[in-house]
Amino acid sequence: MGQAGLEDYFRAQQVSMQWLPVLRALAQQLVTHSSAQDLRALFVKVGSQFASDVEDHFQEIQTLSQLEEALNGLWAQTNWGWVTLSEAGGGISIDHEAAPLAEAFGEECLEWSTGLLEGFYQSVFSVLGASDTMRVREASAPEGMAVHLRFGR
Amino acid sequence: MGQAGLEDYFRAQQVSMQWLPVLRALAQQLVTHSSAQDLRALFVKVGSQFASDVEDHFQEIQTLSQLEEALNGLWAQTNWGWVTLSEAGGGISIDHEAAPLAEAFGEECLEWSTGLLEGFYQSVFSVLGASDTMRVREASAPEGMAVHLRFGR
Amino acid sequence: MGQAGLEDYFRAQQVSMQWLPVLRALAQQLVTHSSAQDLRALFVKVGSQFASDVEDHFQEIQTLSQLEEALNGLWAQTNWGWVTLSEAGGGISIDHEAAPLAEAFGEECLEWSTGLLEGFYQSVFSVLGASDTMRVREASAPEGMAVHLRFGR
Amino acid sequence: MGQAGLEDYFRAQQVSMQWLPVLRALAQQLVTHSSAQDLRALFVKVGSQFASDVEDHFQEIQTLSQLEEALNGLWAQTNWGWVTLSEAGGGISIDHEAAPLAEAFGEECLEWSTGLLEGFYQSVFSVLGASDTMRVREASAPEGMAVHLRFGR
Repeated sequence: MGQAGLEDYFRAQQVSMQWLPVLRALAQQLVTHSSAQDLRALFVKVGSQFASDVEDHFQEIQTLSQLEEALNGLWAQTNWGWVTLSEAGGGISIDHEAAPLAEAFGEECLEWSTGLLEGFYQSVFSVLGASDTMRVREASAPEGMAVHLRFGR
Repeated sequence: MGQAGLEDYFRAQQVSMQWLPVLRALAQQLVTHSSAQDLRALFVKVGSQFASDVEDHFQEIQTLSQLEEALNGLWAQTNWGWVTLSEAGGGISIDHEAAPLAEAFGEECLEWSTGLLEGFYQSVFSVLGASDTMRVREASAPEGMAVHLRFGR
Repeated sequence: MGQAGLEDYFRAQQVSMQWLPVLRALAQQLVTHSSAQDLRALFVKVGSQFASDVEDHFQEIQTLSQLEEALNGLWAQTNWGWVTLSEAGGGISIDHEAAPLAEAFGEECLEWSTGLLEGFYQSVFSVLGASDTMRVREASAPEGMAVHLRFGR
Repeated sequence: MGQAGLEDYFRAQQVSMQWLPVLRALAQQLVTHSSAQDLRALFVKVGSQFASDVEDHFQEIQTLSQLEEALNGLWAQTNWGWVTLSEAGGGISIDHEAAPLAEAFGEECLEWSTGLLEGFYQSVFSVLGASDTMRVREASAPEGMAVHLRFGR
């Protein structure tokens, strides 16, 4: 009943009961019909669409810390955890913590479900004027609720 | 600010903010890639999968009113509205009220999103021993949050 | 299962299960120990305190419709329904719809629980520079989730 | 952004936004008017009332592990964390984890707000037939969301 118990408890609480069974069942059906690559491509588009629905939040942003603040306002409102942005070697590290993806679609679907955040952040940087040669990509495999992306060449 | 205002308010509150933008974006992407017929088939399978994840709730049921009660226990817990079952002409009318489908995926996607409830109820009746000649089908077009199905030949 | 059923359903869903039993039990205990008048006075202060915790939202407001919009932003975020403000005979009618007070503390406690909204709106008007001779008072008895107040002399 | 960040995030998410500002404001008002001792007594009664509203859950229980399971069913449904019961020196240790009391009423009110759990567990043991000489008391000061009680002589 130590730290691990607490994390398990909150993680299970994280996704609203209204959608957890549907999202899990949807993931299982999608996996039966499509490859992980196709599902990742679908989720990149879903994330991109999501970002374009909320792009008004990001129009007037000038600095990286303003962007982090605007993003975290949105993530806090929707219970999607929080993000840390940091400059790293000519690009930007995007570390998204407490993402509900692992809980919603299952740990084994993180391979493609994190595409949602990839597409989301890609769209946000495009709105801010980033050139097409700069892409958001996974920097390393997700660790549970922590998703690590990188924006750069 | 009368009854209509109240219904709009509760309807908008109905789907957790954590998933509303994702479900809406997902619906928009699915529509771009697949026909309504294919999406309905997918959602029938999702509903069927959902039902098989919770089929323990329905094992010991003997009567239609016990079934209605068990179903409404599940729907209340997950904020999915409630259902009324009634015998009608050798079949069973399934009237599901306050379903969050219209709000979650959009009114224009009810054409296929209600497949989720069709697949769910089909699976439940199968668990209860219904023969394969008996099917759940839409009885009439959904009216907002009210979905009308019929189980019968 | 018509309109009444829908309203009952949403009303029951309205207050988070985490606090409903505690708020109900608290109301029952408070009623045993204190008069309705004292409880109303307590809830006026609670509402006033609540308003002062969020008064930053109301600092730059110039018009009644800006105030209504700022208030409804707050009420929407916290699932406290919505308010309509309208000028009426040298004062302002404050009609608050879909308030969770009846569900949270019980219908029979509306006599004093609406003090929370009275204290809240009084504080908001004070922040906006209203003179002390102008008070928020109940305009008529609450009808279920609808609370009717009036700001004026 | 390590373990501490995660715990802070989940703790802040824990109490529904609908009631957090009201519960905080209520606690501040109660503290102004009453001693910690009186507030603890009030909250013991609130917890006791809460337990008697749900005592049906505990009627048929025979063993300590059945009791723990029934309690955790209730706590999971209401997002009130979870409890571990263990026999200890002729009494029972009651360790309640992830309680939303610290977040709801404020850390500084744990002195009296934990009375709610004391009254709750006291009532549950009474329903189960415990004699009046056996009481629930705080075993040690709460540590954040962890509340430590003991049932015994």
